[in-house]
Order: sequence, then structure tokens, then C-alpha cells
Amino acid sequence: MIIHPRTLRIEYGKTTKVMCVVGTELTVNIDRSAPPSSKYFSVQCSPRVQYRITPPPLESGTLPTSLNGNTMLRFTMDTASEVGNDSKLSVMYYGEKTEVLGKAVVHLTAVEISLDVDADRDGQVERNNPNKGSWMWGPNGHGAILLVNCDSEHTYGKRRDSERAEVSRVSDLKDMSPMVLRTSGPAKLPEGYKLTMHISQGDAESVRVFRTRSTAGMHQTLKNLFYKSFVKDYPLVLGSEDLSKEVPYLGGNAEMNFYVEGLRFPDKDFEGLISISLSLLEPSSQGFPETPIFTDRVVFRVAPWIMTPNTLNPLEVFVCSTSDNYQFLKGMRRLVENSGYKLKVCHEYMNRGDRWMQDEIEFGYIDSPHQRFPVVLDSPRDGELQDFPYDVLLGPDFGYVTRTAYNVEVSSLDSFGNLEVSPPVIVNGKIYPLGRIIIGVAFPTATKGRNMTKVVQDFLWAQKVQEPIALFSDWLLVGHVDEFMTFVPAPDKKGFRLLLASPDAGYKLFRGLQNDKHGQAKMFDGLGAEEEITVDEILSDDKLRAENNYVQSCIDWNRDVLKRELGLDDDDIIDLPILFHVMEENRAVAYYPDMVNMVVLGKNLGIPKPFGPKVDGRCALEAEMTSLMEGLGLSCTYIDDFASYHKLLGEVHCGSNVRREPFSFKWWNLEM
Amino acid sequence: MIIHPRTLRIEYGKTTKVMCVVGTELTVNIDRSAPPSSKYFSVQCSPRVQYRITPPPLESGTLPTSLNGNTMLRFTMDTASEVGNDSKLSVMYYGEKTEVLGKAVVHLTAVEISLDVDADRDGQVERNNPNKGSWMWGPNGHGAILLVNCDSEHTYGKRRDSERAEVSRVSDLKDMSPMVLRTSGPAKLPEGYKLTMHISQGDAESVRVFRTRSTAGMHQTLKNLFYKSFVKDYPLVLGSEDLSKEVPYLGGNAEMNFYVEGLRFPDKDFEGLISISLSLLEPSSQGFPETPIFTDRVVFRVAPWIMTPNTLNPLEVFVCSTSDNYQFLKGMRRLVENSGYKLKVCHEYMNRGDRWMQDEIEFGYIDSPHQRFPVVLDSPRDGELQDFPYDVLLGPDFGYVTRTAYNVEVSSLDSFGNLEVSPPVIVNGKIYPLGRIIIGVAFPTATKGRNMTKVVQDFLWAQKVQEPIALFSDWLLVGHVDEFMTFVPAPDKKGFRLLLASPDAGYKLFRGLQNDKHGQAKMFDGLGAEEEITVDEILSDDKLRAENNYVQSCIDWNRDVLKRELGLDDDDIIDLPILFHVMEENRAVAYYPDMVNMVVLGKNLGIPKPFGPKVDGRCALEAEMTSLMEGLGLSCTYIDDFASYHKLLGEVHCGSNVRREPFSFKWWNLEM
Repeated sequence: MIIHPRTLRIEYGKTTKVMCVVGTELTVNIDRSAPPSSKYFSVQCSPRVQYRITPPPLESGTLPTSLNGNTMLRFTMDTASEVGNDSKLSVMYYGEKTEVLGKAVVHLTAVEISLDVDADRDGQVERNNPNKGSWMWGPNGHGAILLVNCDSEHTYGKRRDSERAEVSRVSDLKDMSPMVLRTSGPAKLPEGYKLTMHISQGDAESVRVFRTRSTAGMHQTLKNLFYKSFVKDYPLVLGSEDLSKEVPYLGGNAEMNFYVEGLRFPDKDFEGLISISLSLLEPSSQGFPETPIFTDRVVFRVAPWIMTPNTLNPLEVFVCSTSDNYQFLKGMRRLVENSGYKLKVCHEYMNRGDRWMQDEIEFGYIDSPHQRFPVVLDSPRDGELQDFPYDVLLGPDFGYVTRTAYNVEVSSLDSFGNLEVSPPVIVNGKIYPLGRIIIGVAFPTATKGRNMTKVVQDFLWAQKVQEPIALFSDWLLVGHVDEFMTFVPAPDKKGFRLLLASPDAGYKLFRGLQNDKHGQAKMFDGLGAEEEITVDEILSDDKLRAENNYVQSCIDWNRDVLKRELGLDDDDIIDLPILFHVMEENRAVAYYPDMVNMVVLGKNLGIPKPFGPKVDGRCALEAEMTSLMEGLGLSCTYIDDFASYHKLLGEVHCGSNVRREPFSFKWWNLEM
Repeated sequence: MIIHPRTLRIEYGKTTKVMCVVGTELTVNIDRSAPPSSKYFSVQCSPRVQYRITPPPLESGTLPTSLNGNTMLRFTMDTASEVGNDSKLSVMYYGEKTEVLGKAVVHLTAVEISLDVDADRDGQVERNNPNKGSWMWGPNGHGAILLVNCDSEHTYGKRRDSERAEVSRVSDLKDMSPMVLRTSGPAKLPEGYKLTMHISQGDAESVRVFRTRSTAGMHQTLKNLFYKSFVKDYPLVLGSEDLSKEVPYLGGNAEMNFYVEGLRFPDKDFEGLISISLSLLEPSSQGFPETPIFTDRVVFRVAPWIMTPNTLNPLEVFVCSTSDNYQFLKGMRRLVENSGYKLKVCHEYMNRGDRWMQDEIEFGYIDSPHQRFPVVLDSPRDGELQDFPYDVLLGPDFGYVTRTAYNVEVSSLDSFGNLEVSPPVIVNGKIYPLGRIIIGVAFPTATKGRNMTKVVQDFLWAQKVQEPIALFSDWLLVGHVDEFMTFVPAPDKKGFRLLLASPDAGYKLFRGLQNDKHGQAKMFDGLGAEEEITVDEILSDDKLRAENNYVQSCIDWNRDVLKRELGLDDDDIIDLPILFHVMEENRAVAYYPDMVNMVVLGKNLGIPKPFGPKVDGRCALEAEMTSLMEGLGLSCTYIDDFASYHKLLGEVHCGSNVRREPFSFKWWNLEM
């Protein structure tokens, strides 16, 4: 620790009472306050005071020392005082060696003050960590962590806890970062001295600090957690209205508990770092402001919002129930329950017919050494499902965050089928242990085109720990990346495969069928005569072929970006046989149920049933898909979403959402 | 350079025409487009095409190779084509070894494309610097530099050049960063291909790009600089209205010159990095968007605004002429002219009686390898001098920047007497070769108090290269750091000394006078009977002594901060004998002309004449000051500012401003 010296003034003929914080050095310019004609000085002090003279005197011993024009006396105290003014230091000034010209006396009271946080990230608030005042990423890094208190302790009349004026439930303290003010010293501070906690104006919109009113130590506070009636015992110390406030000095060896609450996620104008200071104020004479004579400072970083890729284990699967999706629900329920997970159904009174569970929300989480909980990011899409995340999901230990696009039209690209995340990857030696976020936009070269709204993009980039990749998805009518790509777990290579829709793979399969004399096999068999079409008919449709050439070139462009940005080889990618056709504004939709738009539940995949041509009674598309996935130890369940999703331009993935386990990797251990 | 592969699709039975950018690798999935039942393939190509097969075939030579399900053909071209389609590659598919099932043919046209900037910062736009796409600080760093085009080529009807719709003078091109598009290839691109330059929406408010309309190379463009009539030849390519625009392909070996203009200084929400991309677009079939098949990207950092400390040589000294400051002007003129610099007088029709030249503006500069010019920062203070920086200073190669505090009351602390900069320092091993900015605010612990407005503070912090320090100046009535501190050059130690006002040093001097029997010597001698006061009277004024104790404790607090933040020792600091007295709201003003508030012109100091008590006909304060400065080889000139400045609560420094030479150290060589 660097000991910052503090300048102290003394006066001959006077006794000065001084507070000395253990660990700080007081410096006195001996010349400055010497009586006129002084030539020598000597220093005496009580045993707890250590002093030195700079420049060091040529003479040795306790004999009077020459004043040299810039003689400094530096002293420290190494233990706290038990009563006030229990140490003493005096400077005697001499003219010639024996002639005493004056004497300055200092009465000293020593205190120990340490504002403490969990800077080593082990869940404990250690004493005076030397690195508590700065942030460093990585396993050898340091710096305390703050959560945005974006859940709601209340299930009814709910509001995010950070929006409530006070701590309304003791359980809410768990969502805040513990901070402890440790002090040692006499029972009371000398008259006029006080402790003040303060934050900067810039940080005030990002943080609040509460404290326990109890004067007891930690143990008793923990006991208080069981008594709701103690809720009022957590007064607000700092917030946007109070940048600075006095905090009590408890006397003796004391600990006072504080609770620090994050209010804002990192964003374009907020890196996520905030600092809190604790100062000891010295009284001045009448009416003058008090002077901070010692300041201790701690730094927190607000935890980023983190997304969870398909390779993480599911916890809950969410779908909507509508008047027409019984078939789909049945398939999903069987898949989810057979896989051992919970199916959560959002009923019609809440979804009002909006079945696109994927598009309204994205599940993520926030994590710290002391607490972790899921946080739903609510899309600015705001369909009929818009109340679901706030009204249903937000609750105790379930957070909510959103970004509002003011004065900007949101587009279909703002739906979160267009927001995915890769499994962990290594790219040219750079490790992304939490994967990389993937969104879809227009070509960067496009003079017009749809985009994901800026406030959401800014939010995603500002989280930093899953550096986003922008793909080209504007070629699709709906425009979501989940229409042409997904990730599935794999036992080998990088631990996953990227699955891409591939018209070329589709045409290859269809041509193979034709070659094997199955040209008369029918797509959409059993879905009604107007839907059915033979393999030969598909292959002879030159317009469809041209459209799919274009689609393949769009997907190939994304394939090149994904290879580059995720460090993938060609054998990390599997092409799925999927055809598209092109609709209004030259934008594409899946020709038959888009198998890549699947739900991934561990080793079980819920895949849109493609209704492909049958060979020996078995769907050739399902057969191909199953064979490709079997090689990875994955099991395919085909879910009929034809009428209730596919015809409405979405599929299984669009109609579901999965909350997953968090990463075991801790975001603060990232090397940045 | 990393060669990013691009996925290419071929079809058997067809000839595909393909553009290949030299330096990129094209990859073809041979299996994906193979005719059904294909088992083997072979590849042939013209000499300029290099190919390889992955995974490498077990067989060798030109014999047919087995298809293995994921066989990739990868090829590159190493020189540009002179005519279109001058190279060829074909893939032959076989069933059994001899049975030909199909053949895919590719006709190739190669081009070289490089968007080039001065990424190595030597003032020249080198060819295809491998680091042009990123920024790295330091002498071994890289990344091109952009200036905010904040000067005005026009002296009349002026406006900052960045606010004009077009390049209005060819001389303006010097303020922009050169960027060159170098291309090699056939005379024309194949039908439908085109080049597009583009920026992101986020960067569009920070940058514009112009180009030369001339199709000639660099040499001819330079010649054009002499012909004003060619001004219209610099059309706008990119700006906030045009994020993407086609740029001509010139054919053969060509260079097209672009001029990149910065529009915004780094700020809280803008780190200063912008990137510009150049893509080659491939046509798609009817109506589909074109696909970017190659993108080159360059990065610029906007040059920060840099302040100049007192240790840099002066260029011009600015003062105001008012109806009552003849005496001051005369003193200043003599000092400045004797020192060999230019005195610039702002006359009363412009200053309208506002004499505080220090407070309305701060001189700084912006620097790049290709251009450098002074930039005045205009304070939100906006006194009667407010039109001076824009109307007088802004001009050719003299930039202007300001920050406006909306809906916030500005205070006296927003004046730029409260904005200074230290000489270069090293602090705990960290080097600040451009020094550190110093501002004054209220105590961080204060519950109320005056502050420097947030937009200005945000601006100063965002420049990054002179990391600011906040001192406590709110204890002063006027509240400016230049009331208690300045820096002067020194031949030894750190190359400078910090001068601090010191009431203790003042009292020591006065006590010494009393001791030496000069207690009846008069302060303010000759300024009229009501001003005069004896040394004895001063020393017997207990209230004054108490006020100065408080002032000394305020200055000592700042002294401790300065020592810590600038890495200073006590002998880097000189205490000047200056007394204060305390006025309304317990805020202080100088008791006699505040000698620390000086103007520093090389080795010559212009110091407020203190009108101290005379000993043997000589002012004791001047004598002490001169003796302290003489030791550093500095020469003191005392300027009478009593009536026209001191009585109005300012002094020489407040009433003047110095434009100085820039640092020889280049900001981009900072290690960050």
C-alpha cells in the first residue's frame, strides 16, 4: 500500500490537537512555523509515534538539529488510540544551541479506518485489501462486483427493487454487495470530527448505498435477517439525491455493514465502474467547511448481463398456448418432459394470441461472488406478449431489463429470434469462455435495410464479456438469425457444431432422390392436395432454383463471417437440407418447415417436422437430419408446427424459449 | 495478414464467372455441388491460380481424387488480371474412375484492392499496412489519425469547416487525413460488380469522407492544390446522410485519393475510434441485393485536444484593453516585447469591458502526422468576451471547440483560470509526457458546493492523454486554481517547480520583518491612506490570522493531492508569501496582489506587484519572490495590476492568456 502523506501545520507557543489515521504519514514543515531567528530544533514523542526528519540530519542522537530551510518532520502511528489525545509529539526551537525560542506541541489521537469490500471475489469482505481501489480482469485480477438490483422481492404490486425508495424486504440485501466500514479508536471522535461516505455525481445514477441502523457487528445483523420487522433498519445513505452523507463512528473496534446496490447495466455511456469513498472530516474554525483529512476508496464493477448458449443445460422451457396450437403443445410437452425438464406454458389471457415466445424475450443472468440470478432482457418488439416478462417473469431473484427505442421504428430484426449466442470459442488465440453474441442486420454496404435498433445493440456491446458478431439476416422476410443457424452440443472437436440451413444440401438430397427413382415422391404428403408437390416438380422449377442460389450465397456470406469470428473450420459446420423461397421485397422464407429452427435440450432436439418426400414410408428429410445428428449422439424429435407456426413464418425455435443454467466460468475471470 | 476464406459455389454443367481478390482464398465444397453418384474428381487450372485440396488426398498427382463427403477445394490468385476472365479453373466429376458425370468451370478475374491510410504515422500513406485495421498506442503502435476539422478556411463569413456542406477551399484538404484506394485489375470490373465505401451508423456523426473527382494519381492531385477552380472536384462520399456509397473503379494500376474529416472530439460517449470500410460487391440475380465479397477496413483515432503547460515556449500573449487598464497594458507590453514574443490586444469593442482573458478561453492544439494546429476551447462561462474566440481566433489553421451546458447554471468555477495543466511528470513509474490537466471543484465530501460543469469535465477526461486531477478550489470566492498555484520552469530536478501561495510563508516573512524592527513598514504604500496598513497591524489581527490558518489548510490539502498525483517531493514545491482574507460565504480572496497568479514567458515572469512593506526602499515581498525565483534562473517583472485587476478579484494571470508551442512529444506515442 502506498502511504499518502498529509501536510500538518503546527505553531510554536501552541498545542495542536491532531487526528492521525493509522497507515498515513503526517508531514510538518519545521521551518515554515519556526519562530524568527530559529537555527536548531529537537523532537520528542510518545512511544506509539514514529518519526523521521528529511533531509536526514548530519548530526545524530537527540541533540538539537539544524534547520535547513526545508526541513520536514514525518511521523506515523501504528495502533489506534484507546482514548483521545493519548500520544504526544513536541518540537522545540532554538536560536543558538541553548537559547529556547519556542515550542510546538501536538496531541495525537490515532484511529484505524478501512472501508472494505470483497475485492478478491471470494464472497467474503476481507480487511483492507490493498487492491480494493481498482479493477483488474482475470483470475489474478481484483475488484469488487455489483449487481443491478433488477429483480423484485415482491410478487404482487411488483416493481424492480432498484426502483423502490427503500429496502422493502430483508431478503433484498442478498442482491446487494456487502461493504463493511471497520474502525478502531477511542469511544468517540474528538469534537467536530466526523466520517462521511460519498460518491461522484457521475456515479450517482448507477448506485445506491444502504446501511444497517443496528450498531452491532456482523453476527447480529445476520440474525436480523430473520425478522421482517427490522426492515426499517436499513436507511439509505447515498443515492442520486445524496452524494455525501455522514455515517456514525461507532467507537472501539467496530464494524458497520453497508449494502451497495447497482442501478444501471453497463451501456454506451457507462463502462460499469463506480467508486465509493469514505472520508474523515476535520472541523475548521467557525463556518468554514470541514476538510477531508483521510479518504479510503473502493471500486465496484457492475456485473454484465450474460446470455446462455444451447450447449448449457436447460432449466425451463417456455411456450405459448393459443387456440390453434394443440398439436404443437402436445409435441413440445412430450419432448420436454421426456428430457426431464419443466415446460412452462404462457396462456392465452397473457399472450393474447402472440405465440412467438422466442421473439419477445431473451434469458440471461447476472453473477457475482455473493449472488446470482436470471435476468430477462425484454425486446423493444413489444408484441401482444409484451407484458409477459414483467408481469410473469420478474419476481424474487428473477431480474428484468429492457431498452426502449425512442423516436425510432422497431423492425422485425428487433425480435430476439435475431439474438443468439455461440458456445465458448477460441479465435486466433483469443479465448471467449462465454461465447459470442450473434445478431442479424442488413449488409454493412446496404444503403437501406432493416437493422436491430441502436439502443439494444449498444447495450449488447457494452456488456463486453460476449463480444457480439453482426450477421446478415435482412435477406429473410422475418429477418432472424435463428432461421438459418443454430448450435448443437457435440462430444468431439470444439464441443459443438454450427448447423446451417443449406439449399445446396437440399437440392443435393432431392437430386439424389430423383436419381434413385423417387422423383414422384411428394412433399407435404397428407397436408392437403393443394400443398403436395413432387420431387421432380421441385427440381424442374428454375425460378425456385435461382431463388435458392441467392439464399445459399447469403448463407455462405454468413458462414464465412462465422468461420472467421468464431474460429471455425468447415468440419465444425453441418449443412442441413433446407430450401427457401423468395417473397415480397425479394426476401426469403423457408419452403418447408425449417429444421434448423429447433429447440436444443441437452442431447434432445425438438425439430420442426419437415413433411418431406417419403421413401419406403420414411421422410427422406427426417432420415437425413436424424442421420446427421445421430453421429453426434443427439436424438431428434420432430414436432408438427406446420399449421400453427410454419404457415405463420416461424417454427419450433421461434415459438419457444429456454432458460438455461449459467456458465460455471465466472465472467470476472475473463482476460480483457 | 490473415487470409479470410470466402465460400464459392460452383455447379456442374455450368460455367461460373468469379471475381477473386488477390490475397483472399476461395473455398469450394466439391461434394456439395457434385452430380449424384460422383465418386472421384479432378481439378485443372491456369498458371496464375494456386489450389489445394483439404483434407489432402491420399492419392498424388493429377489422377482423379476420391470425394470424402466434405472435400474442400481452396484456391488463390497472386496477381491482378489484365483483362477479365483471363484465368480458368475446372472440376471434373467421375463415377468410377473413367466415367465422367459432369464438369464445373470457373472463369476468373483477379483484382488487387487496398484501402490505405497512414497507419504507421510517418505522414505517408503506405501500401496495405497489415495493422491498418486497428489502433495501438505507443511508439511501437499503429493506427491512423484524424483531426477534427474545427478551423475555418474562411476569415469572413466564417464557420467551422466541419459545419460546411462541402470542401470550400483546397487548402482545407490539409486538415483531413489522406486515404488512398489502390486498385489493380482489368480496365473495367465485370458487369454488375462495384466498389462501395461504407461506415457504421455509430461513426456517421463523427466522420465525413470526400474524394477527388480527378481520375489521376497522386502527383496530379497535388498539382490541383494550386488551382482554386478545382474546389468543386471534391465530392462528399460519406457522411451522416450517406453511410454507404459507390466509388469508381479506375482500372489498370490506379490510386484514388480520399480525404477523411473528423467531426467530433472524443467525449463521454465517443472513445474516438472510427472505421471506414471498402467492399467489392457482387451482383445477384434480378432485384436481389448485391453481396459484399471482399471488405477492407481502416481505423482512425480522432486526435485529442491537448493543453500546453507553462514550461512550453510562448508564441503569443493575449490581453484585453479596457478604459482603465493602461498601466497594466504598459507593463505587459514591456514584458512581452522584451521577452521577444507578440502581444495581442483584444480591444474594447470586442471585450466590452470583460478583461478576464484567462477565463473565457483555453489554448490547446490538435496534432497528427500530416497536420497540426492550435484549437481554442471556449468556456461555457460566456462573459462579455464570449464572441472573441469564435469571431477573432477561429480562422485558417486555428480551430475552435466548445461545450454547452444545457439546463445547468454555470458557476465561476467554469472559468478557465480554473483549468490548468502540469508539465510532464512521472508518478509511481507512470509517465505523463504531456502532463496532467488540473481543475478545481468542491470537496468530494461536500454536500453542496460549486463545481466545474459536467460537460466540460467529461470533455477533459475523454481526451485521455493528460488525465485530469481535481483540486479543491471552492474555498476561494472566485474559485480558480490559478489563485493559489502555478508552475515555472527550472533547470534542475523535474524541470519545473510548483509554486503555491502560502499564508504561513507570508506570516513568517512578516514576523521576520517585525523581528528586524520593521513592524512600522507599510503595506500598500502610496496607494492612498485608506489602503495603508503596517506590518505590526497585520500581525496583531487575530481574525486575519485565523482566516489564513484556514486558507493554509485548504492549500495544504491541495498540496497533498498535487504531491500524490504529480509524484512531487516537497523540494519540488516553493511556498510564496501570500496572505488571503475571507469574504462572504466564508470564501477567500488575496489580501494583496496574488503573486502566484503570474504569467510565465520562458524565463521571464510577469508577477502582480504586491505593494508589500518596504525595507531600505525595497518591497520585502518582491525581494523574497525575486530571490526565490533567481535561484531557478528566472527573472521577475512586477506589473501593477492593483486598481484594474486586483481590486476586481483577479491578477495578471487572470487578465492574460498565452498561446504556446506544442509539445515535441507526439500524443500517439503515449503508452496507455
